[in-house]
Amino acid sequence: MKRKTIILTEGFTNPHTAKTASSVIRYGDDDVVALLDSTVAGQTSQDLLGVGGQIPIVATLSEAPTADHLLLGIAPPGGSIPPNWRKVILEAISSGMDVTAGLHDFLTDDDEFRTAAQAHGVTLTDVRKNEERDIARRVGLRDDCLRVLTVGHDCSVGKMLTSIELTKGLQAAGHDAHFIATGQTGIMVSGDGCPIDRVIADFVSGAVEKMILAHQHHDILMIEGQGSLVHPSYSAVTLGLIHGAYPQALILVCELGRETITGLEHLQIPPLARVRELNEVMASIYQPCRTIGIAVNSRRVSAAEAAAERKRLQDEFELPVCDVVRDGPQDLLDAVINFRESKVWCS
Amino acid sequence: MKRKTIILTEGFTNPHTAKTASSVIRYGDDDVVALLDSTVAGQTSQDLLGVGGQIPIVATLSEAPTADHLLLGIAPPGGSIPPNWRKVILEAISSGMDVTAGLHDFLTDDDEFRTAAQAHGVTLTDVRKNEERDIARRVGLRDDCLRVLTVGHDCSVGKMLTSIELTKGLQAAGHDAHFIATGQTGIMVSGDGCPIDRVIADFVSGAVEKMILAHQHHDILMIEGQGSLVHPSYSAVTLGLIHGAYPQALILVCELGRETITGLEHLQIPPLARVRELNEVMASIYQPCRTIGIAVNSRRVSAAEAAAERKRLQDEFELPVCDVVRDGPQDLLDAVINFRESKVWCS
Repeated sequence: MKRKTIILTEGFTNPHTAKTASSVIRYGDDDVVALLDSTVAGQTSQDLLGVGGQIPIVATLSEAPTADHLLLGIAPPGGSIPPNWRKVILEAISSGMDVTAGLHDFLTDDDEFRTAAQAHGVTLTDVRKNEERDIARRVGLRDDCLRVLTVGHDCSVGKMLTSIELTKGLQAAGHDAHFIATGQTGIMVSGDGCPIDRVIADFVSGAVEKMILAHQHHDILMIEGQGSLVHPSYSAVTLGLIHGAYPQALILVCELGRETITGLEHLQIPPLARVRELNEVMASIYQPCRTIGIAVNSRRVSAAEAAAERKRLQDEFELPVCDVVRDGPQDLLDAVINFRESKVWCS
Repeated sequence: MKRKTIILTEGFTNPHTAKTASSVIRYGDDDVVALLDSTVAGQTSQDLLGVGGQIPIVATLSEAPTADHLLLGIAPPGGSIPPNWRKVILEAISSGMDVTAGLHDFLTDDDEFRTAAQAHGVTLTDVRKNEERDIARRVGLRDDCLRVLTVGHDCSVGKMLTSIELTKGLQAAGHDAHFIATGQTGIMVSGDGCPIDRVIADFVSGAVEKMILAHQHHDILMIEGQGSLVHPSYSAVTLGLIHGAYPQALILVCELGRETITGLEHLQIPPLARVRELNEVMASIYQPCRTIGIAVNSRRVSAAEAAAERKRLQDEFELPVCDVVRDGPQDLLDAVINFRESKVWCS
């Protein structure tokens, strides 16, 4: 049965910080009845996130009386629960609502939340909780399963969205493609996966490899990227993912207008050609791996600017380039299908 | 007061697997009174580990009656407690001995061990336990502190030993050098540090950066390497370390005769020149970082073979090369001192 979800984004209702909210609205199975952000109440989801149509933004839980599920809709650096959210979470619990979070701070490790949940008979779900303890072995990978990983020039540029859109497009075209979720939001919308940034460092690549082995009966695995090799805070996660997924193909994702590293604005993002090279080099230690296309996130620029930049990137990289939302994913779907049919990757 | 330590290496008393034991004997502050391995009892530490002189290998705890401390002396893949060790650990606890471990399985999370330790008033120490929750920020690093990181062509090749020997040599020559421990054994012998392979992946580089910031009043930081960028199981840890330590100089460590990746023997280790290049590339995203010397571990080959290979590597790489145990560390000490004095790294 579908849940009726209210998404908590208090103080953070923008496309960058509330990416969990945007993605749950875009791809989730449950009905989203409202967003909760008292600082921008009265506007709509479409107004602030560019998705979700007339879903209202409300100031209090009582304004969404049908909701039976509170979902924490942000993924801040460090993954902690903002202090002013505690009251709302406790209010939801005492109203009989289940609560789902994807933060590093676990609801189920918090005595106050746990006691309240028991008293009110509701379920607390920590999507990032895991007990991964397997190292990667590089054994048993199926040669004729194509593994396509999204990699980015920064974090939060649209790697998950690109992987999901391409999976859906491939499935719609009759291909046996499967999405592998590697982060809390991907898991929320697909119902499966592993939050690899929350795994003990020794076991990151092992956790990824385990997912690959479990799903490699599909022809094509579209694997959700994490972080960026050029983001000093999160590059460990990214390399563990690259070496656990062992992809034969990469799709490079970048946001137009993004100049500096998220959260480390004193660092300039290296040129895209350099980012591509670093990812290919690290993915190609034991087998060839190539970039087969570029997904541009053009939400910050005009249609004319997006089109010009798309053309420029096509010329510079001699690769298919598109914004999977603005342009549709067809060029990248063709890139995956053509690469798969080329068989150059399964020698 | 010095403890009297017996080191448990049951079934694993060889230089590769018992590297924790070897290093505690070589560099630790406590007296090591015996090794415990019933499969090779009667021999000496020197016979089997090449270090430790006449320290006996015994079959039972009762053969080392002066011991007041049991240390688990191996670091196996996955870091679990071998099942047949439980009995020995419980016997040690009930004899009033403290117990120290560096495994992923924590003694202090085990109800039976914890209950026994409380009953007998002994202390259980899990060196790998940590609560790291800070991301790397790349802010506040001191420009004139030289950070030298050891990197390897595989795991368990001698990165920690190289970093410690060079730290000691620099200190002996009057330089203000400090060793930064990043793994359980380094922490055991230095009394400080962070077990970064046990940190949640999002926080690996942050945990390293925190240590750098805490110790950068020294002129030179010699940072213990972890894993290898070309080891698919552990490369996440390695890159988090590289990006958290943000070194200006690398020392490349390799073992002569090592052909395949530890634990993944179906994978050939890439050529050393390639390993050097990968490390320099990943360390040089936001500042230049260069390899200033090569430490060879020649324990498996003859003196003549070691000398020939040292010469060959010097010619191929045009860098100082030595086995810091067999040859002494002088050539690499000179490399660090000369590089520091060159000032090319602090522009």
